[in-house]
Amino acid sequence: MDVGTFDTQIPVLGEAKITSPIRKIKKRTFGFVSDDERVPVDSDLHKLRERFAKNMEIPSFERAGPREKIYFDTSKLRCALVTCGGLCPGLNDIIRAIVLELNHSYRVRNIYGIRHGLEGFIPEFGRDVVDLNPDVVVNIHEMGGTILGSSRGPQDIEEIVDSLERMNIGILFMIGGDGTLLAASKITDAILERNLKISVVAIPKTIDNDIHMVSRSFGFHTAVEIATEAIKAAHNEAQGYPYGIGLIKLMGRYAGFIAATAALARQDVNFVLIPEVDFDLKGENGFLQALEDRILERGHAVIVVAEGAGQKFFEGREDEYDPSGNIRLKDIGLFLKDSVMGWFSEKDIDITLKYIDPSYMIRSLPANASDRVYCGFLGRNAVHAGMAGKTRLLIGRWNEQFVHVPMSASTGRRKKVDYDGRLWLSVMDVTGQGAMKNSPEAKS
Amino acid sequence: MDVGTFDTQIPVLGEAKITSPIRKIKKRTFGFVSDDERVPVDSDLHKLRERFAKNMEIPSFERAGPREKIYFDTSKLRCALVTCGGLCPGLNDIIRAIVLELNHSYRVRNIYGIRHGLEGFIPEFGRDVVDLNPDVVVNIHEMGGTILGSSRGPQDIEEIVDSLERMNIGILFMIGGDGTLLAASKITDAILERNLKISVVAIPKTIDNDIHMVSRSFGFHTAVEIATEAIKAAHNEAQGYPYGIGLIKLMGRYAGFIAATAALARQDVNFVLIPEVDFDLKGENGFLQALEDRILERGHAVIVVAEGAGQKFFEGREDEYDPSGNIRLKDIGLFLKDSVMGWFSEKDIDITLKYIDPSYMIRSLPANASDRVYCGFLGRNAVHAGMAGKTRLLIGRWNEQFVHVPMSASTGRRKKVDYDGRLWLSVMDVTGQGAMKNSPEAKS
Amino acid sequence: MDVGTFDTQIPVLGEAKITSPIRKIKKRTFGFVSDDERVPVDSDLHKLRERFAKNMEIPSFERAGPREKIYFDTSKLRCALVTCGGLCPGLNDIIRAIVLELNHSYRVRNIYGIRHGLEGFIPEFGRDVVDLNPDVVVNIHEMGGTILGSSRGPQDIEEIVDSLERMNIGILFMIGGDGTLLAASKITDAILERNLKISVVAIPKTIDNDIHMVSRSFGFHTAVEIATEAIKAAHNEAQGYPYGIGLIKLMGRYAGFIAATAALARQDVNFVLIPEVDFDLKGENGFLQALEDRILERGHAVIVVAEGAGQKFFEGREDEYDPSGNIRLKDIGLFLKDSVMGWFSEKDIDITLKYIDPSYMIRSLPANASDRVYCGFLGRNAVHAGMAGKTRLLIGRWNEQFVHVPMSASTGRRKKVDYDGRLWLSVMDVTGQGAMKNSPEAKS
Amino acid sequence: MDVGTFDTQIPVLGEAKITSPIRKIKKRTFGFVSDDERVPVDSDLHKLRERFAKNMEIPSFERAGPREKIYFDTSKLRCALVTCGGLCPGLNDIIRAIVLELNHSYRVRNIYGIRHGLEGFIPEFGRDVVDLNPDVVVNIHEMGGTILGSSRGPQDIEEIVDSLERMNIGILFMIGGDGTLLAASKITDAILERNLKISVVAIPKTIDNDIHMVSRSFGFHTAVEIATEAIKAAHNEAQGYPYGIGLIKLMGRYAGFIAATAALARQDVNFVLIPEVDFDLKGENGFLQALEDRILERGHAVIVVAEGAGQKFFEGREDEYDPSGNIRLKDIGLFLKDSVMGWFSEKDIDITLKYIDPSYMIRSLPANASDRVYCGFLGRNAVHAGMAGKTRLLIGRWNEQFVHVPMSASTGRRKKVDYDGRLWLSVMDVTGQGAMKNSPEAKS
Repeated sequence: MDVGTFDTQIPVLGEAKITSPIRKIKKRTFGFVSDDERVPVDSDLHKLRERFAKNMEIPSFERAGPREKIYFDTSKLRCALVTCGGLCPGLNDIIRAIVLELNHSYRVRNIYGIRHGLEGFIPEFGRDVVDLNPDVVVNIHEMGGTILGSSRGPQDIEEIVDSLERMNIGILFMIGGDGTLLAASKITDAILERNLKISVVAIPKTIDNDIHMVSRSFGFHTAVEIATEAIKAAHNEAQGYPYGIGLIKLMGRYAGFIAATAALARQDVNFVLIPEVDFDLKGENGFLQALEDRILERGHAVIVVAEGAGQKFFEGREDEYDPSGNIRLKDIGLFLKDSVMGWFSEKDIDITLKYIDPSYMIRSLPANASDRVYCGFLGRNAVHAGMAGKTRLLIGRWNEQFVHVPMSASTGRRKKVDYDGRLWLSVMDVTGQGAMKNSPEAKS
Repeated sequence: MDVGTFDTQIPVLGEAKITSPIRKIKKRTFGFVSDDERVPVDSDLHKLRERFAKNMEIPSFERAGPREKIYFDTSKLRCALVTCGGLCPGLNDIIRAIVLELNHSYRVRNIYGIRHGLEGFIPEFGRDVVDLNPDVVVNIHEMGGTILGSSRGPQDIEEIVDSLERMNIGILFMIGGDGTLLAASKITDAILERNLKISVVAIPKTIDNDIHMVSRSFGFHTAVEIATEAIKAAHNEAQGYPYGIGLIKLMGRYAGFIAATAALARQDVNFVLIPEVDFDLKGENGFLQALEDRILERGHAVIVVAEGAGQKFFEGREDEYDPSGNIRLKDIGLFLKDSVMGWFSEKDIDITLKYIDPSYMIRSLPANASDRVYCGFLGRNAVHAGMAGKTRLLIGRWNEQFVHVPMSASTGRRKKVDYDGRLWLSVMDVTGQGAMKNSPEAKS
Repeated sequence: MDVGTFDTQIPVLGEAKITSPIRKIKKRTFGFVSDDERVPVDSDLHKLRERFAKNMEIPSFERAGPREKIYFDTSKLRCALVTCGGLCPGLNDIIRAIVLELNHSYRVRNIYGIRHGLEGFIPEFGRDVVDLNPDVVVNIHEMGGTILGSSRGPQDIEEIVDSLERMNIGILFMIGGDGTLLAASKITDAILERNLKISVVAIPKTIDNDIHMVSRSFGFHTAVEIATEAIKAAHNEAQGYPYGIGLIKLMGRYAGFIAATAALARQDVNFVLIPEVDFDLKGENGFLQALEDRILERGHAVIVVAEGAGQKFFEGREDEYDPSGNIRLKDIGLFLKDSVMGWFSEKDIDITLKYIDPSYMIRSLPANASDRVYCGFLGRNAVHAGMAGKTRLLIGRWNEQFVHVPMSASTGRRKKVDYDGRLWLSVMDVTGQGAMKNSPEAKS
Repeated sequence: MDVGTFDTQIPVLGEAKITSPIRKIKKRTFGFVSDDERVPVDSDLHKLRERFAKNMEIPSFERAGPREKIYFDTSKLRCALVTCGGLCPGLNDIIRAIVLELNHSYRVRNIYGIRHGLEGFIPEFGRDVVDLNPDVVVNIHEMGGTILGSSRGPQDIEEIVDSLERMNIGILFMIGGDGTLLAASKITDAILERNLKISVVAIPKTIDNDIHMVSRSFGFHTAVEIATEAIKAAHNEAQGYPYGIGLIKLMGRYAGFIAATAALARQDVNFVLIPEVDFDLKGENGFLQALEDRILERGHAVIVVAEGAGQKFFEGREDEYDPSGNIRLKDIGLFLKDSVMGWFSEKDIDITLKYIDPSYMIRSLPANASDRVYCGFLGRNAVHAGMAGKTRLLIGRWNEQFVHVPMSASTGRRKKVDYDGRLWLSVMDVTGQGAMKNSPEAKS
């Protein structure tokens, strides 16, 4: 992967001059991390060697972790947390980790939970603020969702910063997706303009695992776990009937990581359709013909489709409306279901198709253990970063290290499944699926 | 419950004269059950007393279990098993129990699994037959679905009986729903007409738990277990957003047992809509107004709808077609989703609705422990009944006893949720939902 | 089963003269149950017929459910809840159901949770009392254990009644096992002596399912579910090695219901040892020889032992002490483990034995859906019974009806696995195990 | 981490001259990996920069993956698989992945499963060999354990190689722990000495995650998942009683990764005891005093102990024997249980201690989705490595890449929890536990 060049420096509010209270509280050495410890973005030995030889810059991320000197006076510090956008397993774990770390390691006593996402900052919505402390969060990791609630859509940036000023917040922790990271960038701009001393630390949330420059997003392992249950069900249904077909729609608006990974976990999927890989529907090399061949040969088939796959089929299609006049979403799952049923109906082949869409049974689940551990580290590292006065960053993971990623490096870009990478090649390997394109160029 | 009158006698192929080999094989007393042991249908003391006083017939079922004298010569007996209709947790457990009991307790060596339901009897489909023995079935209870496969729809009765004759079958075990029970009745008629000695024993299958004269159908506990997970997810989603609504469609074509029971398991559902209870959609006492009241007061709501609820809303509606010309099913879940969104859109109230349909993630699951134990008893009792030469019966459960139910007593009727019974009253109790009818008569 | 004769009348505090507020609150008919509705204890038609013919008393239980007239003035009523003894899945569900029913159906506002069992009544322990209301209990069914805490052992009865008087309690709900039911009886005696108007309603708790005159105890289904997981693990371990043996100790101090039922759920257990069925260890017909035969023939074996089985082997054994001077419990699981290893060691047969004791992973779990529904009914019916001024009763289940069982009918006796009943016969059937006795008399 | 120096070159059987059949079979580019692609062992930018500056060797691993040229003629190749040592979630997934990859990508038809570990090579045990093909392995990932069986202990190396020669094996896949890796090294030596062309590829198995130079071992995520369930149970039990203590023994003979990670997943553990960190039992700064302080202050406590912790307490202790004369294992879990009960008994503090040992409920489980995906990659990469004629290597994971690790680099060493590393510091952080040492030196 060619990482290109990007700014990897993390802005700070000012010099971190205060000795961290951690050492005193923890009564032992605490493995402080220095700003000098950096993780190279590229891990290919030859590329690294070449850059060294040519005296080129080696793009790298600052390692996350507690700093020996911090910026804020913890006795006076007030922090705020907000969760935005769709539900994702692990939200409560992160809230819990942030609150416990602020309380136990830094003795911060004023922690406010903003209700229902960015709406919670806007007075007209009249949302209350939740006082967060260890007693409030002690059992929340058992529950799915977010105890703070969430909401979608942007809000006025200046009103948000007004609210932060009114509440006298020192560190704002924002947990959310694309839109939230964009809002976070704008909020830091506005903070800078007003010359305020407020650190903004983001923890990127996307169940789709498509955050640029972050190797794993929280909730992803849990999502794959449950997605495999849906595939198993579809497989049982498909095998249960003559010419049985199981069709599962999984999450993945722009990237097919969940679909691809879940297919690898089960190894009994026959077709995986993702946004990154173009395919034709009809024609002798198209998907439907390949499906027919499989069905006639093996008697059943299992298809996994990511929600963002095949959007080209909707181009130019007129919108459909429901009885109340709402526009019907262009849903690739239902579209494929109709297309498959139409194809076999025309050919007079009697199939039994079962359609499964488990999305909302996945998003609202509590995290599994692996994601819980991961969320714990994200939350604690977010606290350490904020304490050090760092801002405009997100907590990421790179080469098995937690790192500080500048918002500028990640926002507005997306990680994709690489057509020539090991993940997709393995999917093609275990499914046995071909290119499913009528024209030669197979790549999207 | 007024049980009415019905024939409770179980037909037999002939006198059971052969001493059961169980005693010798098991080397101990085996608790043989006599045909005289009967379970009264009604368990209300006063009604029983009254009938006794008036010398009236007390409707009762024969107890299931091994008989001391059996009809078949087990050394020559050939048995067949078939599973029909939709998947249901526990199918493989029943297959396994029948095969193990035939083999271990009666030393029957020729057991044939018919592939893909009734189709498997019809030569033109060319389905193979599966030889069943303990090695084949040893691990199948870990898997969902049915190892024999299934299919829907009727087949020619005479061809089925031809096939039974050709295979020289003595006992046919049929596991299936309404249609299967009807076919089973007709098969026994045809067998009788041909004067054959073939016993037909059915194990009724309906995940909806709506078998008349059977207090619990296998797979139901498992279905409720998973249904509660879907409700939990919907609840998390609903709480996650301002004016959040979770809408879950559950199985229940003619009876709302799954919806009602799952709602009781969670106790955080606000509206349960089932086929047995009529409701109005609009109007000041209708469902949508009640939903609006709840949403405005409490901020979120959870709705469970059984698939067979509210079918009156589709009367006179024109069919809709999908792009391929297939008719769109009249789906109460999607209809309610559209209706709710339309209602709030008109009122300019900004809701977030999440729709969950877990049906095919439930039907294909392995059974939970409770259903496994239950399926084991059903399978073993089916074997005992067949061995005794009994026919035209199904294995049921009544007043905590396994019993023989004549097909005539159950076929063509359905158990329903009683509007004035404890189950529905408890649902109204824990949901707090009202009648949701504009006109006074609340009952469907 | 011969039920014997016992008093089935439920004592009352006085005449129930107040119209139940349920009708007004619920705005519909509510299916009130009359005290006349009774469920016969025996469900064998012939025995019933005989008793009727002879004009004998038919033992029967009063049906549980809401009464049209109640005893207490709900606006002034104060209720208390206490949970005692070992943890059991469903405790929180019952607490929740009682609180919600008191609050929603009867508008009772003063509900007190007693902390840590009977200790909570005794001033010297200084336990606080928990104010219970819907907000407190809304999510507790997701958690295992009991939010009130528990404790073991008796406390002074007079002090408990003093405490009830001081708190001005009208209904005391007690959830606990044998010891608790005994305490409950004594408390009602003391209440009577003091001429107080306090109703005592018990919900019997025993994960072992051994409550006399109650067909199912809450938590049992959940316990069996998890027990089967332990058996599955043991089976995998046993199959994994040459001459592999999996040994699982399950709960069941006096009754082997969990062991027997879990063995039926899996059907891959070879030996089930329970308190009700005597067996010899050594000798040519003993357990160890049977195990050796199985191992040599099939290469592996799975054994389930209930904790109360084989206590005769400890008779006359000297106590062992641990390093700190504590007495070591006489643990049949560890004893069997040692015995099996010793037997094969003497015979120079190289086995691999894996021992699993999942008890405390089971007791502390949240209930599964089936138990949740069941706990909901137990809790609601307990409330209805108390409201009607009934006392000295426990809420039970008989012939698929919830009933009022007089404490006198159940306390001090235990339900047992019947050696000649269908459950144990089925266990012998699916395990293939024999009598494992050297002398002829096989019965304990 | 200072990686030291070690040989990172992978031996080969000879030049890989045959064009891989993958391209033809897969009909697309297949992302072949070149031997030149290497992953630096160290990922600290400064250390890398320093080594480059000084022209020092940069230790690095060869990337795993399919090679364009392979060594074996796949049409004639015969492969063998063996699984050794204790059960671990994922064994069947690896077997399945190897068989499917050999069959689908390389068209290898002769694949033999060796039964019960190394014993299967030794004629005197008389173990059969299992023919492996896609039909045999299709559903095995649903089951725990290993379909091939396993065994412990070494076998004669020359006899093993004799057996490989007799069977005419080209690639031997060995899945096992320390002892197996050692055996694998010796087998390659013997193969070399006999000048045979047999590739030996190992997949290291240890549920403890303590393989040197491998960042994650398969089954670890699954183990942590279930371990957290045990902790949850212990926590419920501890909270359920006055002065309740939950004590969980987890796997971890030499390394405490499972204990530490599971504690981070739950964040409600108060003490984590692992082999890498010394602690004192008694004395004013010892563990028992710390436990007492916690109990008196908070009323309950949860302790996690890895099986290899505190072995110093057994030094010089006389062996204890069970009734049959077997030596009792020195079990830190039971030792701590006794010690805790003794301590509080002496102090006359009435505690309730619940002890949970879930080990054999964990080892025999099927893998979770994350481990399944991981096992799939391990299996496929093992096939690619063997095909290329590489030998004496194990498939590992480093810096988010699958790599070839020379057996010499890993065998005989163990990964440990670093006392000053982020994992252990985080455990100290979330538990709040101190050094628990009476003398100043806190480090083991």
